[in-house]
Amino acid sequence: MTIEIRITSEITVRLIQSCGGDHMIVAAAKVSTNGEEALQYAKEDKAEENRGLIRYLMKMRHGTPFEHSFLSFFVHAPIFVWREWHRHRIGFSYNEESARYKQLDPVFYIPPRDRPMVKVGDWKPGRPKFKTLDEVYGNNADAAYYEIVREMRHGYEEEYPRYVRQLGRDLDPGLARDNLPVGIYSSCWVSCNPRSLMAFLSLRTHDQEARHVSYPLYEIEVAARKVEEALAKGWPITHASFVEFGRAAP
Amino acid sequence: MTIEIRITSEITVRLIQSCGGDHMIVAAAKVSTNGEEALQYAKEDKAEENRGLIRYLMKMRHGTPFEHSFLSFFVHAPIFVWREWHRHRIGFSYNEESARYKQLDPVFYIPPRDRPMVKVGDWKPGRPKFKTLDEVYGNNADAAYYEIVREMRHGYEEEYPRYVRQLGRDLDPGLARDNLPVGIYSSCWVSCNPRSLMAFLSLRTHDQEARHVSYPLYEIEVAARKVEEALAKGWPITHASFVEFGRAAP
Amino acid sequence: MTIEIRITSEITVRLIQSCGGDHMIVAAAKVSTNGEEALQYAKEDKAEENRGLIRYLMKMRHGTPFEHSFLSFFVHAPIFVWREWHRHRIGFSYNEESARYKQLDPVFYIPPRDRPMVKVGDWKPGRPKFKTLDEVYGNNADAAYYEIVREMRHGYEEEYPRYVRQLGRDLDPGLARDNLPVGIYSSCWVSCNPRSLMAFLSLRTHDQEARHVSYPLYEIEVAARKVEEALAKGWPITHASFVEFGRAAP
Amino acid sequence: MTIEIRITSEITVRLIQSCGGDHMIVAAAKVSTNGEEALQYAKEDKAEENRGLIRYLMKMRHGTPFEHSFLSFFVHAPIFVWREWHRHRIGFSYNEESARYKQLDPVFYIPPRDRPMVKVGDWKPGRPKFKTLDEVYGNNADAAYYEIVREMRHGYEEEYPRYVRQLGRDLDPGLARDNLPVGIYSSCWVSCNPRSLMAFLSLRTHDQEARHVSYPLYEIEVAARKVEEALAKGWPITHASFVEFGRAAP
Repeated sequence: MTIEIRITSEITVRLIQSCGGDHMIVAAAKVSTNGEEALQYAKEDKAEENRGLIRYLMKMRHGTPFEHSFLSFFVHAPIFVWREWHRHRIGFSYNEESARYKQLDPVFYIPPRDRPMVKVGDWKPGRPKFKTLDEVYGNNADAAYYEIVREMRHGYEEEYPRYVRQLGRDLDPGLARDNLPVGIYSSCWVSCNPRSLMAFLSLRTHDQEARHVSYPLYEIEVAARKVEEALAKGWPITHASFVEFGRAAP
Repeated sequence: MTIEIRITSEITVRLIQSCGGDHMIVAAAKVSTNGEEALQYAKEDKAEENRGLIRYLMKMRHGTPFEHSFLSFFVHAPIFVWREWHRHRIGFSYNEESARYKQLDPVFYIPPRDRPMVKVGDWKPGRPKFKTLDEVYGNNADAAYYEIVREMRHGYEEEYPRYVRQLGRDLDPGLARDNLPVGIYSSCWVSCNPRSLMAFLSLRTHDQEARHVSYPLYEIEVAARKVEEALAKGWPITHASFVEFGRAAP
Repeated sequence: MTIEIRITSEITVRLIQSCGGDHMIVAAAKVSTNGEEALQYAKEDKAEENRGLIRYLMKMRHGTPFEHSFLSFFVHAPIFVWREWHRHRIGFSYNEESARYKQLDPVFYIPPRDRPMVKVGDWKPGRPKFKTLDEVYGNNADAAYYEIVREMRHGYEEEYPRYVRQLGRDLDPGLARDNLPVGIYSSCWVSCNPRSLMAFLSLRTHDQEARHVSYPLYEIEVAARKVEEALAKGWPITHASFVEFGRAAP
Repeated sequence: MTIEIRITSEITVRLIQSCGGDHMIVAAAKVSTNGEEALQYAKEDKAEENRGLIRYLMKMRHGTPFEHSFLSFFVHAPIFVWREWHRHRIGFSYNEESARYKQLDPVFYIPPRDRPMVKVGDWKPGRPKFKTLDEVYGNNADAAYYEIVREMRHGYEEEYPRYVRQLGRDLDPGLARDNLPVGIYSSCWVSCNPRSLMAFLSLRTHDQEARHVSYPLYEIEVAARKVEEALAKGWPITHASFVEFGRAAP
């Protein structure tokens, strides 16, 4: 039996559907002072002229208007990323591939060459810091990368066939998968609203300028940055205000 | 100072925006067994051929796929309706008119002539029952209705001018409104997903055929039935399955 | 029929039960770095020596450890307070008196004499400011207060008997109450955890030193300050850290 | 370097703290009809005499009173169990061991000898069925078990040293762990309330008598049954009613 393992550093985020926009956030906020007439703001051309209102909502942390929009993503990421993502409970919906009902594909994660991945001296829980292989190994960085990736690949190549062997014994797939490494990929649909999305971004991206600097895992930040692009494209004023006021979710 | 009071039985529900459909629910559910390939089901023409899957999800109460769609409503309803609606916490977003920042309009609720509104003998908490005025008063029903409505209108006509007088004293609007009756109308935006919406419907509509028969307040049921129309129109298979399996939210 | 109306400025908050403490927050946080051994921190005498950890969690906004404690309150407050409180959806549980199943007691709210209640010139939505009657009316403040309260009381005295009359017509209590003013009191049980409680406090108390200055309604702040006492007493380090870092919920 | 791997079938659930009881559920429910006087029911001896009320709440699915209690657990379980558990978002709080900040212990899961683990003919997604090794292999069951466990152990013995080697290269622990199998154990604190707990139980335990029969993974059911013991002990009437009415969460 030969099983081809695919190793990759790619994390896929695809916008499936979305709804709303900056104008809906404006209109929802206007309900508090305008009641029914707020509906007239629910038009796309009303967004830009109400930029000030969105900035005010973000600055003062009036969060609820940012819930009246919606985004659904398809995301393909390693299980160790899902382990973190699924901890976001509020305003997030998930449907994930199930290893109980489907044989997982032999797709596994390896870090890209330039991922900062070597612990540095003042590393400590809560604010870990890492250097790239180039910074640490200089001319030997290629060799170091090769060694790390080879190690990972060896593990994947050991474990996926083991998984297949166990399945071949007619073992419960929910048990056969116990040896699969957390580096294996899984697909999941993720739906959220701009408010819950910004809460996710504030914790899962690193920015020295942020009001609360987060130190996320590299791989979830890769996914978060892609998700952030969808926010920036569909809700440009909301996103700009989010950045302006320190990437703190309202 | 003459203030014209408007009394009405109308409860307005207007769909502002929506996103998704039965096909999105199918596709989200397919992720568990098909992974990335589930995306191919995210097309409108894939809904009908997967009616069986939606029925299965509803019957077995697999709820999460029903979260990958979205609806936003404008609702104009009396405060006593909002008091109940706002207790729905999960999967619901609200932005309401604020009596602290805006003078509420003089619009007040009276029951429609045919609302069952007279307590009957075996009334008890949790499953109240009511008869219509016609059933109770026969030929005198018009007079009874007139008396009830006159009483309500008198109250509204007493209290709204009082509110305006207090505002005229430059009183904090958040205090001046303390005398306003809960029958006054307020506008609110409500966003939800089909799953949270069905949880709302299961509690806020009455159906003898329901698995768990609810005894909602008449007025919130009026609103709920209008909201249900939007679900039935945009997610017809989901809605039909909801009805088929006893109006129990998955 | 003579019905005695009771008017009061009192808002009651009573702690019914609580669970946990600063040591549980320490222990829950320690799980991330100590796994099972974190259990040894789940002792009351471990709180003080880990003050630095709680301060760090609060400062860096690591919120989840603050969820492993619990408080239940009995609260007696006017409906207009509940209208705001019930908008707190996450980490809050409510069971309230029902006007559909119980005749509400004739207890109504009036402001205390020293409540800042007169709008001042630069009042604007989102950051309203008010002066006390003394500041505005000087020697005539007593008279002004008398006039305001008399107006309120008159309304209450009009509407409660109307409510009773409608009940006397065997009207659905859920309809008979439509004329009741939002100043009437209602009882509710409120359960939450320290994290959700701090989110509530950050929005419902005013503090010039807060990172995000809120402008809550006077009456909900009265309730919030009492609730805050329970937090300060049972979770003193958590509360001190909350105050130290700008009253922003982690 | 010799690293001792520990393999086990044990899943640990330990109650850390709890709060409330059947009487608190009674009292919270009584608020709707008794207001402030409901407090008198908040005594332990009031539970038994109000058994009928708890049964009624459960039967009619009045869920909120069941939120006024609280439980915190320490749980030691394999990552593949956490992957499922963490999908319970509402009314659940988690703090888990972090492989980014702590070296995970070499403790791995193997199935107990009598776990039904062989797929049977009519297996299908959503309602998988399994037989025990004895049922399938008869006298050869011991050998079959030995083979399956040996396979698993080999994987664990390959991967944990690989993990340690990667850590030895000063690799980001959040990357070094990518080869760790999902069968490795992790510790987590879980807090919830009886309502959210029953929602968990209804999906994560199998009972042919249940209104909606669930087909959970064996291992999460083991954990769920232990959690259920804590509910049954501290809230005996609630638990009995949960069972009586088909293990459907209210």
